[in-house]
Amino acid sequence: MDFSISDRMQQVTRRVRAFVDEELIPLERDYLTQGFRVVLDALREKRAKVKQEGLWLPQIHKEYGGMGLSTLEHGLVSAELGRSPLGHYTFNCQAPDAGNMEILIKYGTDEQKERFLTPLLAGDIRSCFSMTEPDYPGSNPVWMGTTAVRDGNEWVINGTKWFSTGADGASFAIVMAITNPDAPKHLRASQILVPIDTPGVCIEENTPSMGWRGEDWASHSRIRYENVRVPVDNILGPDGAGFLIAQDRLGPGRIHHCMRWMGVCERSFELMCRYALQRRVTPDHTLADQQIVRAWIAESRAEINAARLAVLHAAWCIDQCGPKEARVEISLIKFHAANTMMRVIDRAIQVHGGLGTTDYTPLALFFRNERAGRIYDGPDEVHKLSAAKRILAQFTEADV
Amino acid sequence: MDFSISDRMQQVTRRVRAFVDEELIPLERDYLTQGFRVVLDALREKRAKVKQEGLWLPQIHKEYGGMGLSTLEHGLVSAELGRSPLGHYTFNCQAPDAGNMEILIKYGTDEQKERFLTPLLAGDIRSCFSMTEPDYPGSNPVWMGTTAVRDGNEWVINGTKWFSTGADGASFAIVMAITNPDAPKHLRASQILVPIDTPGVCIEENTPSMGWRGEDWASHSRIRYENVRVPVDNILGPDGAGFLIAQDRLGPGRIHHCMRWMGVCERSFELMCRYALQRRVTPDHTLADQQIVRAWIAESRAEINAARLAVLHAAWCIDQCGPKEARVEISLIKFHAANTMMRVIDRAIQVHGGLGTTDYTPLALFFRNERAGRIYDGPDEVHKLSAAKRILAQFTEADV
Amino acid sequence: MDFSISDRMQQVTRRVRAFVDEELIPLERDYLTQGFRVVLDALREKRAKVKQEGLWLPQIHKEYGGMGLSTLEHGLVSAELGRSPLGHYTFNCQAPDAGNMEILIKYGTDEQKERFLTPLLAGDIRSCFSMTEPDYPGSNPVWMGTTAVRDGNEWVINGTKWFSTGADGASFAIVMAITNPDAPKHLRASQILVPIDTPGVCIEENTPSMGWRGEDWASHSRIRYENVRVPVDNILGPDGAGFLIAQDRLGPGRIHHCMRWMGVCERSFELMCRYALQRRVTPDHTLADQQIVRAWIAESRAEINAARLAVLHAAWCIDQCGPKEARVEISLIKFHAANTMMRVIDRAIQVHGGLGTTDYTPLALFFRNERAGRIYDGPDEVHKLSAAKRILAQFTEADV
Amino acid sequence: MDFSISDRMQQVTRRVRAFVDEELIPLERDYLTQGFRVVLDALREKRAKVKQEGLWLPQIHKEYGGMGLSTLEHGLVSAELGRSPLGHYTFNCQAPDAGNMEILIKYGTDEQKERFLTPLLAGDIRSCFSMTEPDYPGSNPVWMGTTAVRDGNEWVINGTKWFSTGADGASFAIVMAITNPDAPKHLRASQILVPIDTPGVCIEENTPSMGWRGEDWASHSRIRYENVRVPVDNILGPDGAGFLIAQDRLGPGRIHHCMRWMGVCERSFELMCRYALQRRVTPDHTLADQQIVRAWIAESRAEINAARLAVLHAAWCIDQCGPKEARVEISLIKFHAANTMMRVIDRAIQVHGGLGTTDYTPLALFFRNERAGRIYDGPDEVHKLSAAKRILAQFTEADV
Repeated sequence: MDFSISDRMQQVTRRVRAFVDEELIPLERDYLTQGFRVVLDALREKRAKVKQEGLWLPQIHKEYGGMGLSTLEHGLVSAELGRSPLGHYTFNCQAPDAGNMEILIKYGTDEQKERFLTPLLAGDIRSCFSMTEPDYPGSNPVWMGTTAVRDGNEWVINGTKWFSTGADGASFAIVMAITNPDAPKHLRASQILVPIDTPGVCIEENTPSMGWRGEDWASHSRIRYENVRVPVDNILGPDGAGFLIAQDRLGPGRIHHCMRWMGVCERSFELMCRYALQRRVTPDHTLADQQIVRAWIAESRAEINAARLAVLHAAWCIDQCGPKEARVEISLIKFHAANTMMRVIDRAIQVHGGLGTTDYTPLALFFRNERAGRIYDGPDEVHKLSAAKRILAQFTEADV
Repeated sequence: MDFSISDRMQQVTRRVRAFVDEELIPLERDYLTQGFRVVLDALREKRAKVKQEGLWLPQIHKEYGGMGLSTLEHGLVSAELGRSPLGHYTFNCQAPDAGNMEILIKYGTDEQKERFLTPLLAGDIRSCFSMTEPDYPGSNPVWMGTTAVRDGNEWVINGTKWFSTGADGASFAIVMAITNPDAPKHLRASQILVPIDTPGVCIEENTPSMGWRGEDWASHSRIRYENVRVPVDNILGPDGAGFLIAQDRLGPGRIHHCMRWMGVCERSFELMCRYALQRRVTPDHTLADQQIVRAWIAESRAEINAARLAVLHAAWCIDQCGPKEARVEISLIKFHAANTMMRVIDRAIQVHGGLGTTDYTPLALFFRNERAGRIYDGPDEVHKLSAAKRILAQFTEADV
Repeated sequence: MDFSISDRMQQVTRRVRAFVDEELIPLERDYLTQGFRVVLDALREKRAKVKQEGLWLPQIHKEYGGMGLSTLEHGLVSAELGRSPLGHYTFNCQAPDAGNMEILIKYGTDEQKERFLTPLLAGDIRSCFSMTEPDYPGSNPVWMGTTAVRDGNEWVINGTKWFSTGADGASFAIVMAITNPDAPKHLRASQILVPIDTPGVCIEENTPSMGWRGEDWASHSRIRYENVRVPVDNILGPDGAGFLIAQDRLGPGRIHHCMRWMGVCERSFELMCRYALQRRVTPDHTLADQQIVRAWIAESRAEINAARLAVLHAAWCIDQCGPKEARVEISLIKFHAANTMMRVIDRAIQVHGGLGTTDYTPLALFFRNERAGRIYDGPDEVHKLSAAKRILAQFTEADV
Repeated sequence: MDFSISDRMQQVTRRVRAFVDEELIPLERDYLTQGFRVVLDALREKRAKVKQEGLWLPQIHKEYGGMGLSTLEHGLVSAELGRSPLGHYTFNCQAPDAGNMEILIKYGTDEQKERFLTPLLAGDIRSCFSMTEPDYPGSNPVWMGTTAVRDGNEWVINGTKWFSTGADGASFAIVMAITNPDAPKHLRASQILVPIDTPGVCIEENTPSMGWRGEDWASHSRIRYENVRVPVDNILGPDGAGFLIAQDRLGPGRIHHCMRWMGVCERSFELMCRYALQRRVTPDHTLADQQIVRAWIAESRAEINAARLAVLHAAWCIDQCGPKEARVEISLIKFHAANTMMRVIDRAIQVHGGLGTTDYTPLALFFRNERAGRIYDGPDEVHKLSAAKRILAQFTEADV
């Protein structure tokens, strides 16, 4: 075992960190108090700068114009980017586009890649992933109501989705729909590429969440698909492979979230420490002199360190044997990292007192937005039960 | 010991509960997704109805037009009102007006009562309490920067306050300001009644908090007082009594929050149970069939029951011996109830999955707004240390 | 609601407290470091004194020679007795004898009462309750392996039991055995009175538990019943009523444990506070000056207060409507009180440092012995699931 | 970063694991139910076997007859040994001997090494470390009452120590005593080698702890030193260096405990999983079918994985830059690992039900003995405060 970080990656993370500190954090207050659209122009410039610096698409293979980092290496970058809510977007490795890029690279035809992937990689367009439905449990991904029925050379899609992140302003959606209702349940659904401007696609609303409807990328839409017709060729991968591709997408997607959360942890931790050092509770003492605050700092540091290593270890497992073999590790860190993050954010807010509840630090955004991390991409409980099942199976086998 | 509730109070709470269910909960979605101002007209009507039903001002003595409930009795009502974020406002027992009424009743001159208290009790105007300052710790109430200097027959007030809840739309503020900088530290400040339209009162902004600037009563303002002049007679109580009056105001104020939080707990609990019973995770099973969900329900019920009794007991102590003698009990339930509430809200959100993070239930509002309950009116840690100090003192005395 | 305690009960609890402080706590060190037998003689004298003082059998009806306290009143006494591990034994209200007395009073024939109950009430003999079996889950009380087959005028009992508390030195056991294997599962078992000296009763060992085999009352035995023959008349209550009587016994039994645990909490809390005040960490400061210790003291006090009220409330419910109607309340406080206790004990040990792990305070005994409180009489999880089931049922009904 | 384990270390840990499984676990029940002395003969044989297998003294340099493992490598071995309470002793890497070996190697003169170290390495004798005193806080290592006064060519030692682990049966003690009462406080104490058979050394008792006095190595003695005279040459290292050497000893000592605790975690986890799979709660279902049990398994696995990586990372830091530079990491994992362990043990006990409280699994021993891990070698709180202090100092520097 060797915990050292290569010179190259030390340099990369240092540069990314500096970029976040100097270019993105100054934009945060506008975002936090006025919304995402206000900073869109500035972010466009920052994105150009990221490209110039050769840090664009850290998670994508070099042949597709990315940095070609391994999962573990991207983990290190992602922990830096996650320090700002504007980080991943600016480097074009934000959900859901990053996941969409991955499956387009893996399953897309040349035509699909040219039309959908190329501008996505370039940052010229955005996309969304339309899987979750209001009337069906996200925890049971083989049970859904949206259908795509073949009619000649077209799919006719009907159904309602929500939590389609970033649909507002996106150019296309990847829609999960039942194409084979009578197949075994894991083979019923397919993924279909649907340009947002196709007739019948109706973004009913950006769902108000934790007080915000949000806008543009920073939003979660409810979309009605009403007799939406797209060419048969818009199917991604084989007919009936929707669930499989979704799994393929989610494995690394989960770890990308975990990595980002480590950045949220670090930022919250820094804010906590700095504020504690500076805030006077009497003319002679700061919060940093308080034992209880110190205990939180140590507890947070210990928990972040441990969670961070577990996330990087899971990333390493993916790099070694692929996401399928690393399923248990991924499930375990999914809930572990999310809960660690929420505890750290909570302590950081408490140290900030009233200020921690305002939008003058990113802590309040972290608190209300990242809470969903214990729910999306599989709630804590689903991951616990699924990991336990596999762990117990190992014991059964071992004992035979 | 007798845990039974009198027939009268059973009837009162049943009526209040019905009112909340039938009149207020239907208004919640508009508030949650469009803001407070949207429901103001409707709430005016509801307030009229509350008066007709004889449930107006439950916490206020009959001679001032209230129901004259004891602290414990108001606790029972408040737990019903707290089930909706619109409850207390509609019954005119919301912070900060309720606390302001109390100190006006206790310390106000006849003139002050006529001008400020009477319309406040009638619900014709609103008020705010301007104590917390951005540059001084709320946890140290004897250290502040705002000053009121006597100049002839006037006080000249200068300083900046924030978290002045409900200042937006209020008619007057009660401002804490240093009037005797050289007095012992608990005797330096006074409370002064300041009409909001006095020249020099500048509401700089409603501070964006957890994603909302809020509006009208549901907001927390930052106010600059710049050479604000009010008559000398606008002082509330004796010169130098600001800290004492604030303590007087905060003791019962804290327990009012705790009672309200019990309502938040109950509502969250109901939502959790009902949703669990109704939400299918497979065609044959609901969330209520899941052991983990059941465990949360039992844990929540046990914690709410215990916290609720502790809150009512503290209220009873206040009724028996006054808030000063009940200081330890108040401090203990302040943090205990707030933490119980946050755990219950958190579990309820988790049961709701994605829906729990939207504004289509009040859970997301509870999650982001009530977090401040562990901070305002004394952060958890201040109450822990202060209660422990008194508890330890009892041991020392006992051992002598 | 009225939280005041009657003058009579204030006097009773004061006397019990003084008795525990003056007569029992001085005996603890011998018990803790040398075992229970060493203090048996002394305890015999103390028991005589308790009788003289009219405090004997606080939980038993006056007609049977007890104080005739209500469940709630006994709760108050029990919280005093629980401050010492020798308390309940000395007042003859210890498990399992107290429960056995109850069911003998309720279900015993005159002959059974004369032979078994009378000397038990007098403290002349002890008894045990032989239900739990090593090969069957205690959490499923309708599934067991011990059988009693009728042969002429005798029951012939075969089976193995463990965790028969106090069997070492007991005069008789109440044995749960299947008498009707083909009946519906709740009607299969009966309870049979078995003198310990009956041929075939073999106490195989006092099971070593948390490092102690224990001895006399303070032990848990493994008992083999091998063709044990007792007269048919030794059945307690109707044939097949074993499960029902066990439920009858367990409801109040659980709350008696909870009450005792409140005493464990209080004692741990006192020890924590006193030691903190006295232990110097530097020549100038004691542990009581440490913020973290103060936070624990406040958290413990808040949690004990709330749990104690919840226990007393459940007792009050039993007094009002009987244990069956109070099932949810009993389940909720069973796990809530046990977990509160373990947290308080844990903090008290941490404050004591190394001393807390020695047997020179009762904390180490509490830590290792009371851990079982989360398991016996229904593990936490069984109570959570059972309470949740009933709670959810109320919602279903309410919504119809 | 590379999380892979070298072929050699994979082989070593596999062999150690097999040894523990086949040779030591079968001895556990005798130890758990009859005490340590009962297994001493058997352990002597096992130790011989360990030597033959070349696994003796894994933590010691090859030149001193050990395996010469790095800290990280020993961490891997130690996690295997920690699976049994008999593991470390059998491989001669148990506390306090391991720590004493280290400081004898580093600070011992040739004569001291020959007399004390050589037989210790061989496993022919045992030793103890006599630092903690009943009347002074272990958390403040520069404040103690034991003195060593020079009288001619001898030190005359007076004082009382406790928690001298393994003193019962040891050949010598390393005693911390004040030799320079007027020096700066970190330079007052020295460490002196004291043969246990020196006149005046009185082992007053093996302190009863969590129900056990223990015996031989598995005990903690209270020792009175009354005018104990040893030659001046018995001082270890320079006069006044006692505190420094103690720090030197404790840094790696702490991580050794953490590593061992990871073994305790693994064993508890295995026991939990296996028992869950095998224990039927109904004729058709086992505990492993219960969601709540599965959640515990997943939570435990996630927490152990993360803690284990953090421990190994701290070990790696020690290997890279020495224990002094790794102080923060050591402090953080000391409390983090101990608390993780206690949670895992607790869940494993709960899954085992009544059996978990007996001494028929090692869980009850873990529960009561390892609780001290949050106290010895610096209580949780001391480590939190010390780590926080250094962390905050980094921020202060960074901001300058």
